[in-house]
Amino acid sequence: MSGLLARYAAVAGEDVIEQLRGLARPLAGLRVVHVNSTRVGGGVAEILVKLVPFLAELGLRATWEVIEGDERFYACTKLFHNALQGFPLTPTAAQLAVYERTNRDNAESLRPALRDADVVVIHDPQPAYLRECVPERRGRWVWRCHIDLSHPHRPVWRYLLPRVAGFDASIFSLPDFVQRLPHPCYLIPPSIDPLSAKNIELEPAEIAAVRERFGLDPARYLVTQVSRFDRFKDPLGVVRAYRLAKLHVPGLQLVLAGGEAADDPEGAEVLREVQTAVGDDPDVRILLLPADAHRTINALQRASDLILQKSTREGFGLTVTEGLWKGKPVIGGNVGGIRLQVHDHQTGFLVDTPEGAALRIRYLLSHPRIRERMGERARAFVQEHYLLTRHLVEYLALFHCLLKGRAQRIEVG
Amino acid sequence: MSGLLARYAAVAGEDVIEQLRGLARPLAGLRVVHVNSTRVGGGVAEILVKLVPFLAELGLRATWEVIEGDERFYACTKLFHNALQGFPLTPTAAQLAVYERTNRDNAESLRPALRDADVVVIHDPQPAYLRECVPERRGRWVWRCHIDLSHPHRPVWRYLLPRVAGFDASIFSLPDFVQRLPHPCYLIPPSIDPLSAKNIELEPAEIAAVRERFGLDPARYLVTQVSRFDRFKDPLGVVRAYRLAKLHVPGLQLVLAGGEAADDPEGAEVLREVQTAVGDDPDVRILLLPADAHRTINALQRASDLILQKSTREGFGLTVTEGLWKGKPVIGGNVGGIRLQVHDHQTGFLVDTPEGAALRIRYLLSHPRIRERMGERARAFVQEHYLLTRHLVEYLALFHCLLKGRAQRIEVG
Repeated sequence: MSGLLARYAAVAGEDVIEQLRGLARPLAGLRVVHVNSTRVGGGVAEILVKLVPFLAELGLRATWEVIEGDERFYACTKLFHNALQGFPLTPTAAQLAVYERTNRDNAESLRPALRDADVVVIHDPQPAYLRECVPERRGRWVWRCHIDLSHPHRPVWRYLLPRVAGFDASIFSLPDFVQRLPHPCYLIPPSIDPLSAKNIELEPAEIAAVRERFGLDPARYLVTQVSRFDRFKDPLGVVRAYRLAKLHVPGLQLVLAGGEAADDPEGAEVLREVQTAVGDDPDVRILLLPADAHRTINALQRASDLILQKSTREGFGLTVTEGLWKGKPVIGGNVGGIRLQVHDHQTGFLVDTPEGAALRIRYLLSHPRIRERMGERARAFVQEHYLLTRHLVEYLALFHCLLKGRAQRIEVG
Repeated sequence: MSGLLARYAAVAGEDVIEQLRGLARPLAGLRVVHVNSTRVGGGVAEILVKLVPFLAELGLRATWEVIEGDERFYACTKLFHNALQGFPLTPTAAQLAVYERTNRDNAESLRPALRDADVVVIHDPQPAYLRECVPERRGRWVWRCHIDLSHPHRPVWRYLLPRVAGFDASIFSLPDFVQRLPHPCYLIPPSIDPLSAKNIELEPAEIAAVRERFGLDPARYLVTQVSRFDRFKDPLGVVRAYRLAKLHVPGLQLVLAGGEAADDPEGAEVLREVQTAVGDDPDVRILLLPADAHRTINALQRASDLILQKSTREGFGLTVTEGLWKGKPVIGGNVGGIRLQVHDHQTGFLVDTPEGAALRIRYLLSHPRIRERMGERARAFVQEHYLLTRHLVEYLALFHCLLKGRAQRIEVG
């Protein structure tokens, strides 16, 4: 047993690896091409960098192609991305021309790979036009949507719909995101990689060092929210919940860990509001961490007694998954994918208000046995449903479903 | 190659059977128990009567158990069924007690099978309480919901939710039906059986005989809607569309084929309204066919030039699938699962009004080449997406996904 499979067997369980092998055996030699628009950065690249070697190790001929474009292309696809998430943005005809031309140009170099593939997985809208550029394909094409499509801005979806309709299947992350399409739609939720820097087991010394670095007292309780400074993550509500809980839990500490404010003016404004609300409270840490501070985030989550994710709007909520995986109960907003992960009294608590969050913080901190048992269930829940290996199982199962009709389709024309 | 697989290879394609074998091989010997509440009658029994022998032929140890109850039990589960589809009905405490007791009683006799199964598939709400009655289970339990759960009456869903939440996974037929549950939810649309009486190829002589039996003129155009006499199927709209189309298509014939009005007072009223609207038009046939008139329905669909399904509300719409499978374009209401099957200019037309339906009838009847090509695409579309064999592929893929976490779960407790 070689690299990846052996390493993941240790954390995800030997039986999962056996299931993967069973599913992969009839797919040996299958040519699978994943296509996205960036080799590094972003959740999609993070998944592909593991998924593709995994598929290869399981005996499939899996490759990963990245389309290239200039700034105008990325401006247009960023607009797509935001519009599909609900912002009322509409691309100009010139932007659409850039989008289509960039896909056509990329199709030239990718044609041999795409034409001969058994399965082509196109990630998100950026390379979705490729399909129309490769008429002489033989394989099955599937569109993998990682975006929250629950309320797409209609003009943009109307443009993309005929593109996507040409695929043989689509994959969405949550039921709420599924659109009406003339082909099978599959649900595959996101996953976390238990061996990534963000999730790997850490030595107590490393956790202690991070505590020390940020002046956190190991003898006192710590609650943490990891999130961008964004209104939908409700950091002000978190500060309020912390304040209320602290009336009953003296010495309580709070960490709000977000990314460095880049070019997001609203983020900077929210950050200022949070700083004002916190004032000179010595027990609150507002941390602006670089994008690659994965181990630091990991250590902060592990150093915490519980995790908060008091969003008022959320896609899937991978920070919740990360918190649960570290054996911490999560107090989360009763929205989006948080509801699929946080189950009252099982893996944490769903809350609607800062007051509700404060009550649950007090309850959990004053019941260590319950907190511990919920943490164990939280970890087991993620192990069962949301690890990378499960993601891979779903992909392999999907390939089986997809391939079924292939010869029929070719016969029919 | 034995019975079922060989027979379906001929109609669904050799490659599908190969895919099924590939998927089934690692599952050889897997103990799968399906449980529903009736051996005959209804769509669920129709599927199981084929699915279970198929699984067995593929090497799984598949069995089918049926729970038994008295009239009070079925009164309660019928109430569940209607309430889950949106009717504001709430069971009494006494009814719930009957429901739970019936499940407990059945659990006694089913216990050995359920306890030792690797996978238990519970169909619909009737046997859903069984899970709580078999605490010493070792396998994975999946709840297969065949019901339109898009707008369940809340009090009933609130009662069932904790029952269903205890399963390891759920299956829904359409994205709109998926509920928020603490486990993976899978989408498996319904399917039709191409070798059943309703769908099997018929000799021209048999079709001609049915035409003759109902006095239909083979030299004139025929359009047909197969549906209960129910307002949501809009039979009055169908009559109006027929009348409008007939202004331009002299001699046009219409068949409205429904079931015999049983104990449904509203159905009888709708039927009277339709009869009044039709009057003494000699070119319209209102047919009240017995529930087992499958071959007759089959022949009527095949005798038609196109199929109507002008519903104003619809679940999946299997009559649409049946029509498409017979190579007929379908003019369907722009609602529910009809939208997943009827694609404008591809497999038929979506319409919102009788006037729209009339326009599309005229268009299709005056363009025989287009009608024929759309019919071919319609059949190919169903062959690819909605045959029983595809349903089976999805089940096997699901078993692979399900089993993955089994050992983990048992370890965790």
